[in-house]
Amino acid sequence: MRWLSFIHDAEESFGVVVGSGTQVGVVDVGQRHPEYVDLKHVLADQALEELGAQMSELEADWSLDAIEFLPVITAPDKILCAGVNYKAHMQETGRDPTAQPTIFVRFAAAQIGHEQPMIRPLESQRLDFEGEIALIIGRTGRRIPRESALDYVAGYSCYNDGSVRDFQRHTTQFTPGKNFVGTGGFGPWLMTADEIGDLDALEITTRLNGEVMQNATADLLIFGFDELIAYCSTFTELVPGDVIVTGTPGGVGAARTPPVFMDEGDLIEIDVKPIGVLRNRVTVG
Amino acid sequence: MRWLSFIHDAEESFGVVVGSGTQVGVVDVGQRHPEYVDLKHVLADQALEELGAQMSELEADWSLDAIEFLPVITAPDKILCAGVNYKAHMQETGRDPTAQPTIFVRFAAAQIGHEQPMIRPLESQRLDFEGEIALIIGRTGRRIPRESALDYVAGYSCYNDGSVRDFQRHTTQFTPGKNFVGTGGFGPWLMTADEIGDLDALEITTRLNGEVMQNATADLLIFGFDELIAYCSTFTELVPGDVIVTGTPGGVGAARTPPVFMDEGDLIEIDVKPIGVLRNRVTVG
Repeated sequence: MRWLSFIHDAEESFGVVVGSGTQVGVVDVGQRHPEYVDLKHVLADQALEELGAQMSELEADWSLDAIEFLPVITAPDKILCAGVNYKAHMQETGRDPTAQPTIFVRFAAAQIGHEQPMIRPLESQRLDFEGEIALIIGRTGRRIPRESALDYVAGYSCYNDGSVRDFQRHTTQFTPGKNFVGTGGFGPWLMTADEIGDLDALEITTRLNGEVMQNATADLLIFGFDELIAYCSTFTELVPGDVIVTGTPGGVGAARTPPVFMDEGDLIEIDVKPIGVLRNRVTVG
Repeated sequence: MRWLSFIHDAEESFGVVVGSGTQVGVVDVGQRHPEYVDLKHVLADQALEELGAQMSELEADWSLDAIEFLPVITAPDKILCAGVNYKAHMQETGRDPTAQPTIFVRFAAAQIGHEQPMIRPLESQRLDFEGEIALIIGRTGRRIPRESALDYVAGYSCYNDGSVRDFQRHTTQFTPGKNFVGTGGFGPWLMTADEIGDLDALEITTRLNGEVMQNATADLLIFGFDELIAYCSTFTELVPGDVIVTGTPGGVGAARTPPVFMDEGDLIEIDVKPIGVLRNRVTVG
């Protein structure tokens, strides 16, 4: 099942993707179930599976062209991001291995949905891409053992952890570089865990104006999905709708010779097979 | 005016402090104005001043003994924390000066109110105190000039940026050490900017079991309140209820010889004159 958040006719809503090929469209679940404010509340009510099964039987209400995609979870309680979590990226950044994952934070306010503009801020020429796999938490948990960690995942999505490199390096802490408005692409949808199949085979490809910039499979993660969940839940209680962005492979723009940064008009795509393609065009603002 | 969030009779509410000496108590504004979900929504409606003036005319509904204090803002959209922002603390941590402020993030989930237990987690023996001044944003703004930055502040409070030092140092990023459940003391109340007087004279004193551990005035800040607001609003839009925790003076436990950490039964107080005293007793959990 593929769940998404969107705007239709100036109304925020959420729903499931149905159909295939030219018949693909969206069942507007939010309109039918106003008791759920948003997709996060469906997750909190543990209703994703049952409601999704019912809704998938229906005809699409809207074509994908008729909606504006929003970040899959529009207002997560927490977005925890793993840094330097692929060996090739660790090497290109010159950082040393650590015994625990590197965790930084992105605010919901910095997110954008599929096909919403990605914003290169006026203050910087150094907007970089980071193709990643995001996992979305479906159950509340603290001190979750690694062995059962994947049971807490509702689904997976594509993420572009867009980074303003000069601001990221102002001090030791990444916060400013990871929190510019309009830099965190999250979409197009959440694919439920049962449809993913082999997690290790999830394959990220980042394309800038069609050219492949990053490519890796999830088996190359230094800290796996289960380890990230176990570690983060040591200190914080994970709740439905929380997002863990799991790290980027080698090939980011800042580490290239010469460096590659994004600017007005560039098209950046994060393709995570079999989930889908997150696509954003860059604008300056 | 002093605004606070609390629980009375198992109901979450918020209000203003009235009276003085033994007659001090709370006017329950939340009960009288159910159109405001919480104190953050009063701020968002720009109603703090007018509503506060009306409410201050009333008799107290509850004594301070009859309420359980909550974090002043129970669910801020963002909590931005300044690191190494006093010279004495920078020196004791061995860090170099930076041209921009060091900003990390605490989640709302890690906060506690005045007199709620501060939790030393089972996973660590290294819970440390950090007495700080917090400012609470009252108006929405992006790219706020330093010159007008203080106009965006609704008020100030005491903050204990409780830090689990071993987790803080797992990697370059402070996130885990700053986000353990029950480690961020925030209270007892917000004192409105008009009652503070000279901001430079705000004086932090941290006492552990009655012994002074930290003492400094706000004029010693490396990046002042106005600079922190200007910098943070460069990348993110500040909204009412957002909190900027402005940094801790020298004297933290980890930098002492021998180091001082907190454990079961310790009483930690953050006294910010003229705001008040934030007091928490440590428990293990």
